[in-house]
Amino acid sequence: MAEIDTFPNPAPGRDYLIRHVTHEFTSVCPKTGQPDFGTIELEYVADQTCIELKSLKLYYVGFRDQGIFYEAVVNRILDELSEACKPRWMRVTGRFNIRGGIASVVVAETGSRKETG
Amino acid sequence: MAEIDTFPNPAPGRDYLIRHVTHEFTSVCPKTGQPDFGTIELEYVADQTCIELKSLKLYYVGFRDQGIFYEAVVNRILDELSEACKPRWMRVTGRFNIRGGIASVVVAETGSRKETG
Amino acid sequence: MAEIDTFPNPAPGRDYLIRHVTHEFTSVCPKTGQPDFGTIELEYVADQTCIELKSLKLYYVGFRDQGIFYEAVVNRILDELSEACKPRWMRVTGRFNIRGGIASVVVAETGSRKETG
Amino acid sequence: MAEIDTFPNPAPGRDYLIRHVTHEFTSVCPKTGQPDFGTIELEYVADQTCIELKSLKLYYVGFRDQGIFYEAVVNRILDELSEACKPRWMRVTGRFNIRGGIASVVVAETGSRKETG
Amino acid sequence: MAEIDTFPNPAPGRDYLIRHVTHEFTSVCPKTGQPDFGTIELEYVADQTCIELKSLKLYYVGFRDQGIFYEAVVNRILDELSEACKPRWMRVTGRFNIRGGIASVVVAETGSRKETG
Amino acid sequence: MAEIDTFPNPAPGRDYLIRHVTHEFTSVCPKTGQPDFGTIELEYVADQTCIELKSLKLYYVGFRDQGIFYEAVVNRILDELSEACKPRWMRVTGRFNIRGGIASVVVAETGSRKETG
Amino acid sequence: MAEIDTFPNPAPGRDYLIRHVTHEFTSVCPKTGQPDFGTIELEYVADQTCIELKSLKLYYVGFRDQGIFYEAVVNRILDELSEACKPRWMRVTGRFNIRGGIASVVVAETGSRKETG
Amino acid sequence: MAEIDTFPNPAPGRDYLIRHVTHEFTSVCPKTGQPDFGTIELEYVADQTCIELKSLKLYYVGFRDQGIFYEAVVNRILDELSEACKPRWMRVTGRFNIRGGIASVVVAETGSRKETG
Amino acid sequence: MAEIDTFPNPAPGRDYLIRHVTHEFTSVCPKTGQPDFGTIELEYVADQTCIELKSLKLYYVGFRDQGIFYEAVVNRILDELSEACKPRWMRVTGRFNIRGGIASVVVAETGSRKETG
Amino acid sequence: MAEIDTFPNPAPGRDYLIRHVTHEFTSVCPKTGQPDFGTIELEYVADQTCIELKSLKLYYVGFRDQGIFYEAVVNRILDELSEACKPRWMRVTGRFNIRGGIASVVVAETGSRKETG
Repeated sequence: MAEIDTFPNPAPGRDYLIRHVTHEFTSVCPKTGQPDFGTIELEYVADQTCIELKSLKLYYVGFRDQGIFYEAVVNRILDELSEACKPRWMRVTGRFNIRGGIASVVVAETGSRKETG
Repeated sequence: MAEIDTFPNPAPGRDYLIRHVTHEFTSVCPKTGQPDFGTIELEYVADQTCIELKSLKLYYVGFRDQGIFYEAVVNRILDELSEACKPRWMRVTGRFNIRGGIASVVVAETGSRKETG
Repeated sequence: MAEIDTFPNPAPGRDYLIRHVTHEFTSVCPKTGQPDFGTIELEYVADQTCIELKSLKLYYVGFRDQGIFYEAVVNRILDELSEACKPRWMRVTGRFNIRGGIASVVVAETGSRKETG
Repeated sequence: MAEIDTFPNPAPGRDYLIRHVTHEFTSVCPKTGQPDFGTIELEYVADQTCIELKSLKLYYVGFRDQGIFYEAVVNRILDELSEACKPRWMRVTGRFNIRGGIASVVVAETGSRKETG
Repeated sequence: MAEIDTFPNPAPGRDYLIRHVTHEFTSVCPKTGQPDFGTIELEYVADQTCIELKSLKLYYVGFRDQGIFYEAVVNRILDELSEACKPRWMRVTGRFNIRGGIASVVVAETGSRKETG
Repeated sequence: MAEIDTFPNPAPGRDYLIRHVTHEFTSVCPKTGQPDFGTIELEYVADQTCIELKSLKLYYVGFRDQGIFYEAVVNRILDELSEACKPRWMRVTGRFNIRGGIASVVVAETGSRKETG
Repeated sequence: MAEIDTFPNPAPGRDYLIRHVTHEFTSVCPKTGQPDFGTIELEYVADQTCIELKSLKLYYVGFRDQGIFYEAVVNRILDELSEACKPRWMRVTGRFNIRGGIASVVVAETGSRKETG
Repeated sequence: MAEIDTFPNPAPGRDYLIRHVTHEFTSVCPKTGQPDFGTIELEYVADQTCIELKSLKLYYVGFRDQGIFYEAVVNRILDELSEACKPRWMRVTGRFNIRGGIASVVVAETGSRKETG
Repeated sequence: MAEIDTFPNPAPGRDYLIRHVTHEFTSVCPKTGQPDFGTIELEYVADQTCIELKSLKLYYVGFRDQGIFYEAVVNRILDELSEACKPRWMRVTGRFNIRGGIASVVVAETGSRKETG
Repeated sequence: MAEIDTFPNPAPGRDYLIRHVTHEFTSVCPKTGQPDFGTIELEYVADQTCIELKSLKLYYVGFRDQGIFYEAVVNRILDELSEACKPRWMRVTGRFNIRGGIASVVVAETGSRKETG
């Protein structure tokens, strides 16, 4: 997968929320070999570093040819992005398009936070 | 009813939320014999196993010819699906179409969870 | 007013939410004698009995020729329906159409409940 | 039914459109005796007289206890209101609430007009 | 299929539009054997007879176990309903739920009409 | 009423559409003495002069204490603004808030135009 | 300002919520002398008396010619209405239209309440 | 590209509209090498054959790794699909996601049709 | 202003519609010196050349420090872009944010076209 | 940057919420030199002084030519505005337009408050 670039948190003394949403996530269904599509919402409270947007985009593009289930997509993104920027708190929400008449959402988080927004 | 297939939870060490929504639920009104229609939203925190999507779809199709009241639909789905995958927490929400000028919603859950999304 | 029919709660061992919404409520303004219109949302956690839908519809129709203020409509529905089915918790929300440029909402509840949906 | 009051058209030399919409129409189903609910949209190009709003409201209230089918509601309103104000053109659209899972619309007009809005 | 009942057009001297929409249409995919779901919008200008609503509902219910493609659903409804009420003009629009990531609409009509609404 | 200022049309050789919408129109009901509220949409194709925005705003404010019916509001605005800027075509649409359960729209125009947008 | 009329609370033994919303509030900007427009949402839990709707409307009309800032509008309404009906809890929310590209909201409350809706 | 399968038009004697919409179209920008995303709406009036849905889906998937501009995407789909099913009329609309702050739509058609819906 | 780049029309034998919409247009009000904001929608039928997207974006950015009225913005964009790509038909629609309680739209076009979408 | 003007809090004895939202925020991306666009929502509980709206607008305009990242925009506005009016609590939410297919939100706050709206 693409490397995640980070930059120094401009306000490390404050707990504040950062949210990045893309409607352009696509991977491949490992059962059928057909493409899956969805939205990925990343929310986190940075500690010392923030995630750089262009590298985040390229990281998501890296799933384009991967065969992977919804539950694994969300947990893997959470593992890899929290590893990359060591946040105080992070949550990943994947909203996946209708398959067989069913729309699916998976939400995972790590760390804890006080409510900010 | 159709058998529910499960697969191993890819992140059993983490409490995370899975939500599946179908707008294609139909059963039969036991009083009038006419079809009922609605939306079923399933939310759960998996323990060791996750529910496989195709078998979930077939499970819902199994209600197509059943005569059953709204309150019983939701409680039965909750009983059967929680039995099938032994989740840490599960909630079922049925939203049923207007009958006699009244739209109905039934929400039941089992287990407990910390708020995730 | 019409009699409220009830049927045995299919899952009395579980606290779960039932919500019925009608957009077809009408009564008469006691001051002007002109019709009032609104939406009534009934939510409850059943104990031993559930409210039957057709009798609920007829109960609402019974307000059609009654002269009654908004505040009294909501409190009376709460009193009569909770009397009829003895719920663990019940809430009635009346949303009334614009009169004199003002839209009004009245919300009353009885009993207590743990949050379900 | 209530009398329709009219007042002199303030701009009789110009073809212009007047539209009045109420979301508070109710009559009675002649088959079931149960109330029907809907929206009535009245559009017309006045000739010498315009319809007074308060009398229009009271005219609609006059349907509250009438047993009448949707198709007849719309054609009768068109007949009676065009008789009352002799417009150059008039159209009545009734949008009726869901009954048996079916929502219905009836649209009737009389006279002809050039497109204005 | 269920018989379509009709009643005499209350305004046969006038061309006016009748529209009935149901969000509760379901049939079976002849390829997969799985249920299809959609919305059916019926519009027509009656000649001597109108379609009775309850029989229309039952007619649609008659597709519940039929294996039939979208294009055939719409053309067959148009053929059978125009045969039943001999309208001056009729149009049937089927809007079918997402299958394989694709939502489909089929629109067919018969006869001709002047624009009414 | 306030004077309408104009400025030279920057493209007098071309028929093009200008539309100004305000949601802040208020006048007084001549029957009840109570305030009326609505939206005014002005559309025109300028000839030699365009209407200046600030003077248009002040012109609308001039209705704040005027007792005037909806039909007269729209026709008078059309008369006065078309007099002020001599457009090739002009249309005024007034959308007035619900009174007695009825929302009203009045649309008047003058001149003719080829369709532009 | 207009007098606020009250009537006896029909259910003084119960804490329940009353909400009145008007989209027809207008006052005058004390800096520019130009009209301001907005929405006022009043919510309260009555003690012994409820606010009568017609007098509430007239009370709001009383601001029509007053020069007053947003923050003062909301706090003054809260002071005067809570003085008039002595509620257990009251909240006033003013949502004011865009000025200089900025939309403003002011929310003030008095007393305390348990959550009802 | 994938082969387009067709099946015999079930109503070749009638001009009727078929519309298929997918929100899951993705190709590659030939300039940047980054993925593009969009919605493709296909509308046609069949002559002797209709387009089979599963093969249409696979045809769209075939663009996943193609470097191609928006204008070429839409014209090529129109050329290839009209070649495959020889329709009486066909239109392709591509709505592409925001790039550089600009959202783009391309609409191309071939053949002619009478208006159906 | 920035140069507009063009590329050869990939389907010059066909009249088809191209539409580019940006919500990120800003210029300066020549009267107040304060920024204006709006949306620009460009639609055209290309002849031999199409407008390249990145140069279009930079062209719009060129208005950022220009003092110019709404009517002039739209007519100048139409003049300059039609000069740059010599389209068969072109239309520019500017939708500008609320100023003084008034939202404004200006629509200008050049050339003629058959209706495509 | 522009000076922030303040005026005395008209209700310093009460904790109440003030919210100002502008959809007209623009700055410059320090990496690409291209403009960024977004919405800024300011919420605060005033202590002795409130922020004057016109100076707030000019303060935001001051970012028009500044090269600055999203995270820094929000934290700097929070620092400078809380410095200017010494609020009991303040929160700034920046919602930034899609770049590279990703929409971003940043939320920061200072001080503490009891929930008001």
